[in-house]
Amino acid sequence: MKDSRWVLGVDVGGTNIVVGLVPAEGGRAASLRVRATRSMAGPADAVRHIARLAREARREVEAARGPVEIVGVGIGCPGPVDREAGLVLDAFNLGWEPFPIRDRVSEALELPVELENDANCAVFGEWWQGAGRPFHSLVGVTLGTGIGGGLVVNGELVRGASGTAGEIGHMSVVSEGRRCACGSYGCLEAYASGPNIAARAQEGLEVGAESVLRELVDGRLENITALTVYEALLLDDAYARAVMQDTARILGAGLANVINLLNPEAVVVVGGVTRAGKHLFAPLEAELRRRAFHHAARSCVILPGALPDQAGVVGAAGLFLRSAAGG
Amino acid sequence: MKDSRWVLGVDVGGTNIVVGLVPAEGGRAASLRVRATRSMAGPADAVRHIARLAREARREVEAARGPVEIVGVGIGCPGPVDREAGLVLDAFNLGWEPFPIRDRVSEALELPVELENDANCAVFGEWWQGAGRPFHSLVGVTLGTGIGGGLVVNGELVRGASGTAGEIGHMSVVSEGRRCACGSYGCLEAYASGPNIAARAQEGLEVGAESVLRELVDGRLENITALTVYEALLLDDAYARAVMQDTARILGAGLANVINLLNPEAVVVVGGVTRAGKHLFAPLEAELRRRAFHHAARSCVILPGALPDQAGVVGAAGLFLRSAAGG
Repeated sequence: MKDSRWVLGVDVGGTNIVVGLVPAEGGRAASLRVRATRSMAGPADAVRHIARLAREARREVEAARGPVEIVGVGIGCPGPVDREAGLVLDAFNLGWEPFPIRDRVSEALELPVELENDANCAVFGEWWQGAGRPFHSLVGVTLGTGIGGGLVVNGELVRGASGTAGEIGHMSVVSEGRRCACGSYGCLEAYASGPNIAARAQEGLEVGAESVLRELVDGRLENITALTVYEALLLDDAYARAVMQDTARILGAGLANVINLLNPEAVVVVGGVTRAGKHLFAPLEAELRRRAFHHAARSCVILPGALPDQAGVVGAAGLFLRSAAGG
Repeated sequence: MKDSRWVLGVDVGGTNIVVGLVPAEGGRAASLRVRATRSMAGPADAVRHIARLAREARREVEAARGPVEIVGVGIGCPGPVDREAGLVLDAFNLGWEPFPIRDRVSEALELPVELENDANCAVFGEWWQGAGRPFHSLVGVTLGTGIGGGLVVNGELVRGASGTAGEIGHMSVVSEGRRCACGSYGCLEAYASGPNIAARAQEGLEVGAESVLRELVDGRLENITALTVYEALLLDDAYARAVMQDTARILGAGLANVINLLNPEAVVVVGGVTRAGKHLFAPLEAELRRRAFHHAARSCVILPGALPDQAGVVGAAGLFLRSAAGG
């Protein structure tokens, strides 16, 4: 008989909250539910929505397959988290104060909950059930509202001394470059997160660059988003291509650093920004191969994620299971 | 009875070859022998000198303590090495072609030999017997003719997919900055290796900077070395201080990247450049704490190495023992 035990995976991002039921034996999420993260409404509002989405997901799966047993919850949140204490710390993309999200979700759902950084969840998800399955060690990068990352070395997530390992988005490659939300300068995130791709596109247009982007937003440059830049790419806009090329070169320099430092078997890149496809990956690979050590670059493949929209949910569930098994 | 088994540690650097006998039970090297690496004379010359230094070291220890049993040899060499095949690959600081140094040293000494990257050896040495002993995980940085590094995670050296993990010297923090010997731009090594500290000092003097350095080299600016800059620091020279401050800021930006990525318990900094002491460490710590994530920086101590001149020898010996024990 097929295992009917499930784990609820929750991915709290800067843009959306995603909830899904993941089979405990491994596999993709069934019944994925998404809603906008109303970060301004605060974390208690988020907990209420997580509980509601969880009930909806359960009803949907039970309608299709009969009663399910949910053994626990894995939840991924942005920024540094205190895993032991179950706290979201300073998630500057959400604007939340430290908040005991693990216990609040546990009370709301009456289930055991494990908390982990959202990028670690997405990377673990890709390693457990996605593009990273063939590898013992990989580096994952999440390109979205923020840039995160995670490291799997010999099948184990590297958490570090205080649980914050993997913050690849805050690798500075232009030491006196753009100010980053983290307080430093020239971080990958300051150039290549969705909002910063949009900001850089706007800045060029403000000083006169020609582009179809102006029409796409009816001249309201402040309405440009990374998605608008992507639409312009599909329209073969040279300026949008240049913006994406600069993005890719910065990311390539950062990934070359990571490849020199960790010599991973694979780098898996996930998140909304990967929609740019070859416009992102081709110049990114060219730049990192130009910069990284030959031996290290040759041993490393660069892959897009295989679990779009659900790597975080699958990984959060997988990490709950790891933890429940004592790992 | 005290264990009389010893391991020969060999550290082939860009400047010196160092050989020493290390007790198999752990401890510092006895009878350290040093001679200049005549890299122009090629690797076969180096093998002859290693064999001679090994015989001298053995005689010296035996004269003091009676017969010793040497169980094997650990050897550290610069640049990427092929550990499985026992080859030095492209050690651009030595100018050697790929060379089977492991087997040649093994033939010359009639002992089993393990080969590892020199920076990995130094870092493992500091972790095994030096400043890193209290920690499960650390990042080591070697500042010398080149800049290398190594990673210990949960008591294991991280080697990576092709054995080249830890190349922290080739982390670019100024993406369009100084050209590096590795082919990339703006790497830490391009600013903060001994020869590049000297080159930057020279460049400033060539465009008119005032400094006691001119007198120290009798106006022959091409004779400035990192050691001359260090002498000028001791004479309280403002220009030398500025050169070292720039060096420290670049290294601080690089270490902030590493701390954000790996969240280590400690960073141990070793090598000749650490002679600059507080002139290096104070601005380096200030810069990295300004840049790194607060939670990660707070969990990490920055320490100078505790095994000057012999971390590489001790670590090479330790890695031979690890390998002989099947690790």
